[in-house]
Amino acid sequence: MKRDEVAAFYKDLSSYEGKTVTVCGWARSIRDSKTLGFIDLNDGSSFKGVQVVFEDGKIENFKGIASQNVGAALKVTGMLLATPEAKQPFEIHASKIEIEGASTPEYPLQKKRHSVEYLRTIAHLRPRTNLYSAAFRVRSAAAFGVHKFFQENGFVYAHTPIITGSDCEGAGEMFQVTTLDLENPSRTEEGKVEYKEDFFQKPTSLTVSGQLEAECMAMAFSKVYTFGPTFRAERSYTQRHAAEFWMIEPEMAFADLTDDMDVIEAVIKYVVSYVLETCPQDLEFCNAFVDKGLLERLRHVMESDFVRVSYTDAVKILEQHNDEFEYKVSWGVDLQTEHEKYLTEKHFGKPVFVTDYPKEIKAFYMRLNDDGRTVAATDLLVPGIGELVGASQREERYDVLLDRIRELGLNEEDYWWYLDLRKYGGNKHAGFGIGFERLVMYLTGISNIRDVLPFPRTTGSAEF
Amino acid sequence: MKRDEVAAFYKDLSSYEGKTVTVCGWARSIRDSKTLGFIDLNDGSSFKGVQVVFEDGKIENFKGIASQNVGAALKVTGMLLATPEAKQPFEIHASKIEIEGASTPEYPLQKKRHSVEYLRTIAHLRPRTNLYSAAFRVRSAAAFGVHKFFQENGFVYAHTPIITGSDCEGAGEMFQVTTLDLENPSRTEEGKVEYKEDFFQKPTSLTVSGQLEAECMAMAFSKVYTFGPTFRAERSYTQRHAAEFWMIEPEMAFADLTDDMDVIEAVIKYVVSYVLETCPQDLEFCNAFVDKGLLERLRHVMESDFVRVSYTDAVKILEQHNDEFEYKVSWGVDLQTEHEKYLTEKHFGKPVFVTDYPKEIKAFYMRLNDDGRTVAATDLLVPGIGELVGASQREERYDVLLDRIRELGLNEEDYWWYLDLRKYGGNKHAGFGIGFERLVMYLTGISNIRDVLPFPRTTGSAEF
Repeated sequence: MKRDEVAAFYKDLSSYEGKTVTVCGWARSIRDSKTLGFIDLNDGSSFKGVQVVFEDGKIENFKGIASQNVGAALKVTGMLLATPEAKQPFEIHASKIEIEGASTPEYPLQKKRHSVEYLRTIAHLRPRTNLYSAAFRVRSAAAFGVHKFFQENGFVYAHTPIITGSDCEGAGEMFQVTTLDLENPSRTEEGKVEYKEDFFQKPTSLTVSGQLEAECMAMAFSKVYTFGPTFRAERSYTQRHAAEFWMIEPEMAFADLTDDMDVIEAVIKYVVSYVLETCPQDLEFCNAFVDKGLLERLRHVMESDFVRVSYTDAVKILEQHNDEFEYKVSWGVDLQTEHEKYLTEKHFGKPVFVTDYPKEIKAFYMRLNDDGRTVAATDLLVPGIGELVGASQREERYDVLLDRIRELGLNEEDYWWYLDLRKYGGNKHAGFGIGFERLVMYLTGISNIRDVLPFPRTTGSAEF
Repeated sequence: MKRDEVAAFYKDLSSYEGKTVTVCGWARSIRDSKTLGFIDLNDGSSFKGVQVVFEDGKIENFKGIASQNVGAALKVTGMLLATPEAKQPFEIHASKIEIEGASTPEYPLQKKRHSVEYLRTIAHLRPRTNLYSAAFRVRSAAAFGVHKFFQENGFVYAHTPIITGSDCEGAGEMFQVTTLDLENPSRTEEGKVEYKEDFFQKPTSLTVSGQLEAECMAMAFSKVYTFGPTFRAERSYTQRHAAEFWMIEPEMAFADLTDDMDVIEAVIKYVVSYVLETCPQDLEFCNAFVDKGLLERLRHVMESDFVRVSYTDAVKILEQHNDEFEYKVSWGVDLQTEHEKYLTEKHFGKPVFVTDYPKEIKAFYMRLNDDGRTVAATDLLVPGIGELVGASQREERYDVLLDRIRELGLNEEDYWWYLDLRKYGGNKHAGFGIGFERLVMYLTGISNIRDVLPFPRTTGSAEF
């Protein structure tokens, strides 16, 4: 079906102006006087649609078109005319309008404001609204921006496994994956579940991180990144947590924490810049209706040098303001969102890397610093969000890593292959994890993770 | 850590020739005479490494370096010299070599040929071999090529859910996802498993396809694609099936089967061309050691117009050769790999779209043709692989779709939202699915799916 896309008109009006075009899209609104009608037609190729003007006598079936319901799919052929005096830059004067698919008065997205809570119950239709059109278009552009950055910088994209045989990250509650019959699983003589009958002949779960496998790949390609779904089975009802979310986990051989921070700063700036460039209409909408300071904040980030401050110094700063915090700060505590926001929003007013956290509050694989009590880890805190990226140099010393695994009571045998990486050509290496939904929230100003995931999976909810 | 990448030397030798460079990588081999040594150093930035020449008296610790084991991680500084007379185009004359991480004589990847079966048992190390270095680098390039094609053509990347509440595709066995305690799940008064206690308060599974959700997105953005993991819990030990694999599922509004085939042909040619351009060393290796006809076949595909033949005509062709087939062909049967390969390899000698299959052997959502017995579906068959892409125009007519759902005994209530798409601005639309591993196998000539997945999950196996 030959058709033109509205996005092309916005990009290059002069090529289309005065020419006959054919646009297929959905009516966001239809209004008419006796002989003249207007359709706000959106074809999804860009955030903004096109106004279609249709006139009795100039098209067939004027009344039939004028009486269509909002949501109808229409194919419009007509002349594209620039309208420099009007609100919209151009409109189509229709010579033909065909009804590809009608809609009904029961169409839930009538031209009025709906609550996001309601729209979540119709996740199959909500991408047709302004908010979700912007959110998911930005999501797509940001995802491609991420790929583009890493590919152009020589990183190999690694697909790490989703189904995993062990909880190697030690990151908490996991979803079990099974083909056993839950009503009546095979059992051993002792009455235990017989996992030899399960698909993988052992218990398996959904991954919480691809990092450990990404490290294997980095020890061959030097620079790799993952970009895939990860899972947490924590019962949580916050705005910031979903059970299924996408993560980007780069990993670099021959790199330390400073290299790590350099790459993090570069990729965040690159993606912000890429989205600003490719989604201007979407971001303008978000800036106007979601978060008034959005565009200013994004532009500010691109121009800022990110601050680098040690955890120890950050704690000193925060301790002076303990009276303002619900949770009081002292050396050794994990920073809460209120503290992170204080640092990045109030104290520094720009993105901040907090480095060298106490080892007790960080994961086993992070490199122990020479002081013996902190690790070479960093979190990137950004205004409006708090933690956006978690990073660390990885422990490359076999003995030190083994000690940490034992110290934490992890199962040494689960890590034989991870330890192998330290036996055969190990080296200083580092990596990080970006929660992709956090990044999209940061780019759009949207505050609830349920509104940046097309079909969110959260505690008690896996609809569609 | 400032370092140069070997890939850059291959791309632009003149910028580095005669200059001091620093390369970090792993020793693939080390040999020495009394005063002169050679290291084949690979840093993973490109398939081919760099030869390092080191001389006693010109570097510190000559003996220490010469006695390193294969697999050691080394940091080499030296002069890059062009060697137009030698096998390799350049080499580094070292002025300094540092040992970043030693290896041991037990390192499993000694300089000899290993079987792929053995290498699968050390999936954490096998990316350091030629075969897997090529496979996973091509995989990465192909993935980016796919994203690039769709993004440059105005498709929105849609992340469809991995955990799903129902088997909407009707595609067969699924993995169950649960947080219930399998040993002793909560039970209802009737003794059934109490799914209200499960994380999502109902039974959930791993998706077999994102298509139905992608259709929701296409009804807003016109053109979308997914690229994510999908799952099949079928017990299978073939070379072609994994339990976890990646799929690309584009979906287009206002498009019919012809549009669909046009896009499929374009994306396959684009990705082939992109990989030929970005991974020449990798493909040359595959052509020499994996599949002698690879490069010729790939170049041939780029220049071919893909054939389009109806199932009915294809069956007529095949029936004439029934004596050559294990499974005899007649109208109504599903084509087997032997038939698909006959058509694409022997009869046509290039990629073939077989169209308009009998409805009985295809999925419920495919559009019924006017003949009432075939559907507007197509499979793309390619030499060396057989089926590479499955596609169809989707049934956009509410009543026809509902009839098909009932006819097949599917649970109507599961599809309320999918049916909604036909009530509110439905339209002719079409989409397809590319099994990404099949594509990588096609691009590399590798015949076992276990060798194109970094950490394969197959029946009975979920290691690492």
